[in-house]
Order: sequence, then C-alpha cells, then structure tokens
Amino acid sequence: MSNKIRIGVIGTGRIGRLHTEHLAFRIPGAEVAGVSDVVKAAAQKCAADFNIPVCTDDYRRLLDDPKIDAVAICSSTDTHARMISEAAARGKHIFCEKPIALDLAVIDDALAAVRRAGVKLQIGFNRRFDANYRRVWEAIRAGTIGEPHILHITSRDPAPPPVAYVKVSGGIFLDMMIHDFDMARFLIGSEVEEVFTLAAVRVDPAIGAAGDFDTAVVTLKFANGVIGTIDNSRKAVFGYDQRVEVFGSGGMVQTANNTPNTAKISGPASVAEDLPLNFFMDRYVDSYVREMREFIRCIVEDGEPPVTGIDAKIPVQIGRAARRSHDEHRPVKVAEIGG
Amino acid sequence: MSNKIRIGVIGTGRIGRLHTEHLAFRIPGAEVAGVSDVVKAAAQKCAADFNIPVCTDDYRRLLDDPKIDAVAICSSTDTHARMISEAAARGKHIFCEKPIALDLAVIDDALAAVRRAGVKLQIGFNRRFDANYRRVWEAIRAGTIGEPHILHITSRDPAPPPVAYVKVSGGIFLDMMIHDFDMARFLIGSEVEEVFTLAAVRVDPAIGAAGDFDTAVVTLKFANGVIGTIDNSRKAVFGYDQRVEVFGSGGMVQTANNTPNTAKISGPASVAEDLPLNFFMDRYVDSYVREMREFIRCIVEDGEPPVTGIDAKIPVQIGRAARRSHDEHRPVKVAEIGG
Amino acid sequence: MSNKIRIGVIGTGRIGRLHTEHLAFRIPGAEVAGVSDVVKAAAQKCAADFNIPVCTDDYRRLLDDPKIDAVAICSSTDTHARMISEAAARGKHIFCEKPIALDLAVIDDALAAVRRAGVKLQIGFNRRFDANYRRVWEAIRAGTIGEPHILHITSRDPAPPPVAYVKVSGGIFLDMMIHDFDMARFLIGSEVEEVFTLAAVRVDPAIGAAGDFDTAVVTLKFANGVIGTIDNSRKAVFGYDQRVEVFGSGGMVQTANNTPNTAKISGPASVAEDLPLNFFMDRYVDSYVREMREFIRCIVEDGEPPVTGIDAKIPVQIGRAARRSHDEHRPVKVAEIGG
Amino acid sequence: MSNKIRIGVIGTGRIGRLHTEHLAFRIPGAEVAGVSDVVKAAAQKCAADFNIPVCTDDYRRLLDDPKIDAVAICSSTDTHARMISEAAARGKHIFCEKPIALDLAVIDDALAAVRRAGVKLQIGFNRRFDANYRRVWEAIRAGTIGEPHILHITSRDPAPPPVAYVKVSGGIFLDMMIHDFDMARFLIGSEVEEVFTLAAVRVDPAIGAAGDFDTAVVTLKFANGVIGTIDNSRKAVFGYDQRVEVFGSGGMVQTANNTPNTAKISGPASVAEDLPLNFFMDRYVDSYVREMREFIRCIVEDGEPPVTGIDAKIPVQIGRAARRSHDEHRPVKVAEIGG
Repeated sequence: MSNKIRIGVIGTGRIGRLHTEHLAFRIPGAEVAGVSDVVKAAAQKCAADFNIPVCTDDYRRLLDDPKIDAVAICSSTDTHARMISEAAARGKHIFCEKPIALDLAVIDDALAAVRRAGVKLQIGFNRRFDANYRRVWEAIRAGTIGEPHILHITSRDPAPPPVAYVKVSGGIFLDMMIHDFDMARFLIGSEVEEVFTLAAVRVDPAIGAAGDFDTAVVTLKFANGVIGTIDNSRKAVFGYDQRVEVFGSGGMVQTANNTPNTAKISGPASVAEDLPLNFFMDRYVDSYVREMREFIRCIVEDGEPPVTGIDAKIPVQIGRAARRSHDEHRPVKVAEIGG
Repeated sequence: MSNKIRIGVIGTGRIGRLHTEHLAFRIPGAEVAGVSDVVKAAAQKCAADFNIPVCTDDYRRLLDDPKIDAVAICSSTDTHARMISEAAARGKHIFCEKPIALDLAVIDDALAAVRRAGVKLQIGFNRRFDANYRRVWEAIRAGTIGEPHILHITSRDPAPPPVAYVKVSGGIFLDMMIHDFDMARFLIGSEVEEVFTLAAVRVDPAIGAAGDFDTAVVTLKFANGVIGTIDNSRKAVFGYDQRVEVFGSGGMVQTANNTPNTAKISGPASVAEDLPLNFFMDRYVDSYVREMREFIRCIVEDGEPPVTGIDAKIPVQIGRAARRSHDEHRPVKVAEIGG
Repeated sequence: MSNKIRIGVIGTGRIGRLHTEHLAFRIPGAEVAGVSDVVKAAAQKCAADFNIPVCTDDYRRLLDDPKIDAVAICSSTDTHARMISEAAARGKHIFCEKPIALDLAVIDDALAAVRRAGVKLQIGFNRRFDANYRRVWEAIRAGTIGEPHILHITSRDPAPPPVAYVKVSGGIFLDMMIHDFDMARFLIGSEVEEVFTLAAVRVDPAIGAAGDFDTAVVTLKFANGVIGTIDNSRKAVFGYDQRVEVFGSGGMVQTANNTPNTAKISGPASVAEDLPLNFFMDRYVDSYVREMREFIRCIVEDGEPPVTGIDAKIPVQIGRAARRSHDEHRPVKVAEIGG
Repeated sequence: MSNKIRIGVIGTGRIGRLHTEHLAFRIPGAEVAGVSDVVKAAAQKCAADFNIPVCTDDYRRLLDDPKIDAVAICSSTDTHARMISEAAARGKHIFCEKPIALDLAVIDDALAAVRRAGVKLQIGFNRRFDANYRRVWEAIRAGTIGEPHILHITSRDPAPPPVAYVKVSGGIFLDMMIHDFDMARFLIGSEVEEVFTLAAVRVDPAIGAAGDFDTAVVTLKFANGVIGTIDNSRKAVFGYDQRVEVFGSGGMVQTANNTPNTAKISGPASVAEDLPLNFFMDRYVDSYVREMREFIRCIVEDGEPPVTGIDAKIPVQIGRAARRSHDEHRPVKVAEIGG
C-alpha cells in the first residue's frame, strides 16, 4: 500500500534508537519495518516506544524478510562487517555505523560483498551532514577562502568512555579521531598522505594502562599541499568541543560550538553564556536526520550514497598510521599501512 | 489499543500543517485522528503527507467524533471564538492559535464557554517555549539579574504581509506586537498598566493607506515598576530579528538571533556570518513542538495549560491601548480599554 | 621657538588632568602652558606630574597670558558660562566640557560672547569621537543601512554619583542623558522634535529624595521620522554599558561594549568573558585624545569645530523637555522649551 | 633637575620611532636624551617630531654620553649583539629588540658582556605585555583552566615582507615564529623539548626561491607534557591574525583578534564586522608602551627585567630546531641545537 522504503534497524542501543525514531517519525519516505537487538528487552522497548510492528533478538529475521528494503546496522563494531556481507547477499541496501571494522582486510571483504551484490552502502559519518561543517565545505567549494592552506580540527568529548570500551575500540585514533580523519578528507577534498602524532595520557591513567591515550594532536600532510592538525581530548569539562578552522589564500572560515540558547548574562563578575550542547545526541541530532534522509533518497532515486565504502576504509588506514607514528615517533605515510 | 491523545486539527494552512506534522511524528503521546480545512484539497494533501486517516472540509465532523479528545484550531482568526465555543460544548480540549478574536466581548464569550465546559484551553503563544526566551525567563525567576528594571523587546519581520491581510488583521498591534505583549507579561511576571506609542509608515505606503503602520515603538509601564519598550518593524532586510534584553539590579540578560550555522568567514573586506534564520517556521520550529507537548501533557496529567484564556485576552487589551495611544498621542492606561 | 598651540587648562580634576596629559604627551601640535585650579594643590600636582611650567589657583592668570592661544575649561559646570565669556573677550579659543550651563539664557549669553569675539568654541561631547559611534555614524552616512527608522541608545553607569552631585547637576536628563541626546542628534543627523519620558527611582531612594531619578527611558521623535529610545540607569553592576543600535530600510548597525581583552574562558559551569571597561576614563580614553586633536586642528587650520555652541544648547533643551514630559506625564515638544 | 631615566634610542625606523614616542610622551618616568640612526635624516626627523634634544648618525655618541642611563636598541638585527656588548661595557642598561642575533654563539657573547657589566637587559618580546595574552597567562597561573594539556598559537601576518628581508632574516622560524616560541614558553611556563615542522611555500614562490617558507605548522612537546601547535602564514588577506587557545583539565581559555570597533552590520546578505587591526603597530601598540614602562620600572626599582637574556636565546634555539625538523623531516629535540 505504502511505497515507503522499509527499513530494519539492527541494534537498538543509543544510536539505533535514535535512527529508529528518525526513520519512524521524521523521514516521510521511510518506515521502520522491524528492529532487532541481542538484548531482546531493548528491542521490545524500542518497538513499543516508536510503534514498530516487528521486534526480535535475531537480526537474520530482518535480513530474511522480503518486504524489508534496507537495514541500518547499529550494533557493536565487531559485528558490522559480517552483517554487511550477509545483508548484501540478501540484496538489502545498507546503512552502517562507522567503523566497519578495525582490520583493513575485514573491511575489504565487506566492501567486496557490497560490490558483488550491487547494493548501496552508506557509512554513518554523520558530521558531514551537520550545518556547521556543511557551511565550511560549501565555502571551500565556492572558493570563498581561495586555496586552502591550513586546517585545524578540534574535537573533544565531555567525558571519557568506560575503560572497558577503550580496550576493544581500537583506541583514540580509531574510536574518536576517525570522525576527524573523515572530516579532514571531506572538507579538504584531498587525501592525507602523511601523519605525525603526539599523544599523551593526561585525563585518566587507567586509559594509559589500557594501552591508549586520552589527549592527542596529529598533524596531517595532504596530497594537495594543505597542512592540518587534529586535536582530541577525551575530557573537556565545559562539554562537547567541536570546531573547525580552514585558512586559505583568500580568507578563513571558522565554526564555533553550538549552544542551547543565545542568552548572555552580565553579572558582577563576568559576562557568561551557557555551555555548548553537551554531547553528540544533542549536538548532532539534525545531522543524524539528514544523513538518513540522504540514505533513503539515494535508494529512492537510485543514486550514489554520499559516504561510501572507501570512506569507511581510509580513515581506518589514517588511524593506524597515526598510532604507528606515535609508536615509532616519526612521520608515517598512510601508504605504509597495508590495504 | 493505543492510549495516545487523539487530536483533530482544524485548518491546514502553514501553521496547521506544522502542528499536524509535530503531533503525528514528534510527540509520542499524541496522534492526529483527522484534519479539516475549508479548502478540501489542502486537507487532503495534509492527510496524505502525514498519513492521517480522516480528512474533511467540515470541521464539525471532527468535533462530533467521540474518539477525538482535543482539537487544534489553526483556521483564520475570525473563526476561532466560534470554534472554541463549539468544541467546548462537545467536551473537547482546545489548543487555539492566537488571537482568539479582535473583539474583547467575543473573547469573553469564548472563555465563558470554556469555563462552563471545564475543558482545557491553551493559546498558541509559542515563543514562550523558545529556548532563548525560556532561558531569560529562568534567569529572572532565579534572581540572576536581581530585580528587573528595564525590558527591551525587538521583534521585526523579514517582510510585510500582504496588504489584504493587514486590512483584516487588526493592525500591527494585534497581528504582530501581540506576541511581544505576551512575551513582556511572561518575562516580567507583572501586568502592563500603561502604554505610549510612536508609530510610522516607513516600509510601504500601502500599509499606511490601509490604516495601519509598519514601524512602531511602544513603551510599557508595568505594575511592578519595570519600564519596557517593544520595537516592531514589518521589514528587516537581514531577516527575522527576534531579541530581548532585561536589565536589573543584579545584572542583565540578552539574547541574540538564532543562525543556521556558526560559521564565520574572514575575507578581504570583512568578517561575516550568515543571516539569522529567516522566519518563524525556521526560527521557532522547536517552540511549536514544545508548546504542543505541553498541551498534550496537561491533558494527560490533567494539569493547568501553560498559556490560558486570560493570556489570550490581555494582549488584545494592550494592543488596543497601544493603538489608542497613537491615535490620541498620549499615554493610555490598559484599564481604559473595556473588557 | 615652538609653533605649537599653547593651551591653558582650567580645572585639574579628573577630566582636566586627563586633558592635560593628552595635550602634554599625546598631541604633538599642542603644549600645555599652564594649569589652574581653585584647589591650588591639585593644580600643583598636575603641573608636577606632567611637567607644566605654570600653575595657579587663579584661572585669570591663564586668560591674561598673551602667549596662551586657547583654554580648556574643565572646572565645575556653574563656572563654564562665565569663563567662556571671559576667555572669548580675551581672544582665546575655547574647549569647554559639557554642559555650558543648565539655564538656556545663560548658554545664549556665552554663545553670544563667543560669536562677538570670533573665537572657536568646541564642546566636550567626546563620545562623538569614539571609534564605535564613529563607525555607526559612517555606516549611516554611507547609506549602508538605508534610511534609518529606529534608534536605540543604551547608556548605563557602573555606579551612581554622590547624592550631593545629583542635587546640583540638573538631574539625570542633564548630567547623564545629555550625552545621549547629543549622540542621538549626531548619529541621526536630524533634530529631536518631541520626547516622552518614563523615569523611576530603582537604585537608591536618596536619589529620589533629592528630586531625581536613577532609571529612565525616553522616546524620541525626530524631524526626519526616526523613532528613538534612550535608556539610562545610574547603576549597572556589570560596569559601564554603552551601546547603540540603528535599524534602517537597508540593514542594521549595532555596537557592543568594549572589553579589556578578548579572552573567553570555558569552565565547568559557563563560558565567560571579562566585564566591559569599567568607566569613562577607561572606556572613552581614545575619544578624549581625538576630540582634543580635532580642537587643535581646527585652530591650526582655522576650521569649524566639530562640536559647536548650538550642540551645547540643544541637548539642554531636550533634557528639559524630557523632565517636563515626566512631570506632566505627556509627550513634550522640544520647541515648548524656551530658548 | 629631572630624575627621569634618560634613554638613548638607537635606530629610528618604524619600531624605534614608536619607542621614542612612547618614551617621550607616554612614560612619565622616562625621557629621550637622544636618538641615532645610520640614516641621519631619519634621526633628524624623529628628533624633530618628538622634541628630542640630540640626534646623531653615530650611536656611540649616545653610548659615550654620561648623562644617558640606558639605550633602546632598535637598529637592524645584525648590529644588536655588538651594540649590547658596547653598551654594557659603558654601564648602560639595555632594551633590545628581538632577536639579539641568529647565531647562538654571538648571543652568548652578548649575554656574557651583560652579565660582566651587571646592567639590565630586557628583550623586546612585546606580546607578553598584550592584554589578551596577559589574561591567558593569568588564567593559567590562577589555575582557572586546571593543568594545561594543549596549546594552539595562530600567528599570521597580513602580507609577506620583501624577499630581500627574508634572505637575511633567518627565515620564517627566526623572523616570525620566534615571537610564538617566546609566547609558548611564557604561557605554558615550561620549556619546549622537541619540535616537528611542516612547512610550505603557498603564498609567493619567490619566498621559496629564497630558501624560506611562508606557511608553517610546528608542533611542540613541552617538558611538562603539554602538546602545542604554532601556525604561521605570511599572508592573511583579512589582516593580522593573532590568537591563542589553551585547553586544560579544568577548562579552556581562548583569545580573539582585536578589532578597530565593535560595530556589527546586518545587511541583506550577511552580518559583518570590520577586519581585525591590521598590523603590529596598531594591534600591539599598548604592549609596546607597557614593555617600556616595565623596563623603566626595573631600572628605577633595580628589579629583574621581565624578559631576560635567556629569553632571547631559547627561541632562537627552538627556531633552529624547527628548521632542522623540516630539513630532516623528523622530530628534533631542542637540545640537539648547540648553545
């Protein structure tokens, strides 16, 4: 009856619930046909909250449903590659949260499966759809700042994740800075050729004990000559710090943090504003809607997804190069990383 | 099966469609049971777009439907009072766009009908639910700026409405500044006792020929001693200009316009930002969701609506006093206006 | 030997000392030939601090000195008119702090003496020379904002003056808002025809007991159709609040307060900046240098002073009209005020 | 007669003239006893403009004058070290523009001469006295942002210097970034242990042909664990770009560029502000006054200069390390640089 795109959402944790809500309520061309989660109760709650007809703890029920056109894979990272291959084999279009995998060979296998099946694959680098970054991208494309010379990305979380997560996440360069590697490529429109890393443990020794870092600055050398820096901290006490600056021959474009309101309060000691929006569910909520709208649109119009498989692979390579740069304390070419 | 509040939306013009979308997609506790519009095609399109089961050109079909709990009246102003009375008589809770009427006696009749029926009535002063104004309200309530002394409200539209509208709208004090009168009362928490008006035709002589103004500054004297000003223009070339400043014994709170992004572009001639969000559908979209959530909540929890009948009446009185102040070129007490 | 303009400074209180320092050190074309003060010790200290050869408690010694080209009158207001007349009679050019007098007839007499003598008279409305207001003035003159429609001036002091001062100052409309009346005329380039005043005592009852106000909003109707407001408070806990906004058919220009630095500190509770520059000696220091440079230049080049006698008189008329508007609680035309 | 500190200014180019003006007019405790320049006409003009009694083309006349207490060395860099030694030998206190020399051994010789003579030597790192950087320094010292973790310095000139200058200046790391190395040490209060450089020619190939760069990003590793970046461009079309950001465990402090006014103009296309103050003579003028006040004060009070000889030497070492890092494309320890 309806000619909406029917989606199955796999994984109903924080991000899966968000996508479910958007697909159910805010994207007229889509409907959620079913949700799955290994924790059945989570899937049930999600289905009840958003009026989804089917819920299961076995994602294959969604993959096997012929009335389902596409899946959104929001489960844990270690399951992504396998699910992509299985979904592709069943002819489902695929939206997959980043990263596909931490291992480049595994990523290659998944991408090969997608290619063979001829289905669409979009990767969840949602920040590309944020209004601030989009405006920077447009300014660069329009030549407003001339030739880009220098890029700075600042990306700091309000609080570190659990150490247990850090142990399996691939570390700061793959669980956090990967978003920034994607942003760097997206904005500059050129590939990163080489990185140099300075990383430290300043926030929590337990993160160091787990073999990871909580503070890092990586410099980037792009193929087109741009020089960039990315700065990550796992803990900004003032909230989610998400900014970018691109300097070029004709000018500069900078973004500031988004805030919950524009009120400025002048008191006896200072002039103060409220803290930035605290974390990605608040800060980037619109970008999650937009990326999903684009995914639905590329299915409906049979177009190219705006973030494709190669966009999933390259940031992992850069992340591995960044880690190697720290370990060997030298600039590392991304091409040194196999894949 | 569902225990959602079932709403009928009357009038599917711009604002009626917006409320329909929000009630259908963004407010889990509500569902839209039907829409009506005197232009049947408009109702049909709205129903199709948002998956509404019933559409009609006769709003009484909605009022007569026993499964409908409440109505959102979004039709033209001259129909509001009658529909309120009819809906109240049928025991429906009522959300009504402002103003109820331009005639105070007509407002009184509608409010009496609501009182007799014991239904809830919420008036659509959506700006009270905007994050900026809410933050100002909180700062004042929390004592952050001490005792308020001076209030400034700036409220300018990006472009004037059609002159045909101006002829029936009641004029700038009732079609535009009425929002600001409500905001003034809401923020200061005290009643306006007296107004003095300076008004002019600076934007379009046709507006003057229709007996109205396009530029006006009204000063307000509040019962609690606060002095205020409201400044309206029907045309700000840079977009929708919506700001407030409250100065008090302990400090000041000010809001700025909301912008589509935070990008700042430094070029050879200036440092520039994009224009403010252009009009109320963009600027205040979140406040429309929030006001409707509050309406649904006050039904579910059997609470008091956050904007009640008296809040619909008083701004009309102030608006009439503001007009009289101009006509007689003297300060006019609101109490001089019957009602 | 030197062909510098030789100035005598009369009155070495706060503002006289400032002018002495500027004339002595920061304006190459001028030198201070002598200073006088009724408090001899003040004159002596000023002379010692800034290396001035002559100091006296009798200003007539400066007026009688044939080597002195001009005087800067910085003594108390009640002496201004008399000194202007005496200095003019001796052929000295005159810089005089505002206001010349509180009585319009007295002002007229002084201006007549200046006219008869053919000397130059510049009035110390220093804010006209401030970079912010100057930029607003330029934007208006350049047509950047089209035809001006609405003007808002905010002008609040960090702390009230002593009540003893208020008793002799002429009150808030003549000791404080007079600067804003001058600014209004300067920026809009048209005369104020009518005012309407709301005034209150909110800061200190002693000010009210002295017959004055500490909080006031005055609306202005200009000959060219612009509508304006001026808002004064004698106490802004956050410091010296000096802002202006002009809205026109083609745009808007606004200024913000000047701050001691641009640092922004993001902490766990808010994002804060330092308070504005606290009072006129800090905030307007550059404007005092510039006005004096212009004074010296108009002597050297035999040009017209940028702020002339009529600019001293009209703000006093407006101030008197503003007071009458409060007293009679009605709009008052400036033309009602004799003079 | 006067007990002012008597200064001889050596070199009356742009910066020498500025110091002469400040010492003559804005620092009550000092007077300029004489000026010298190899271009006699320049010295004469300076003397005439600022009323200086002695002018010469032989700086030794100033050094030999027993009534002169101190010298300000503002001549070309290649003369600094020799003049320091000669001035020290004659017991003069010394203010010297940066850098003392490009050769570390030469610097060491000059510092030894100062030590032997027991005179005071202050180096002209004026930015330390700028209100923005001073505020950042204070915030860090006060613990407002907790332990510093990450530093970013942005420092871009409005236009490149002549290529002839670049050929003798020591290059971007010694003629431009040297200020930022000083700032980095000053703000963080810890020494830079290692640098890594990415440098490019993006502005003008002639700069590259001269063996230098116009675009560079250097990362810094501090002894206390802070990670920093410095970003230089020789050409920012929007003017002088001078900003800093320090992120720490307890917050962040950032500065913005200084502007000539606070006016914001909203037009039909954007909301625009004027460009930043264009170059160091405008942007840093107050810091030049303050550094010289401090120099006079340390003489008068026999205190320690706020910027000493070692502060002249270390930035040159860092600059040499930065260049070597580029040449050898590896992180370079500052300790690798002799001295």
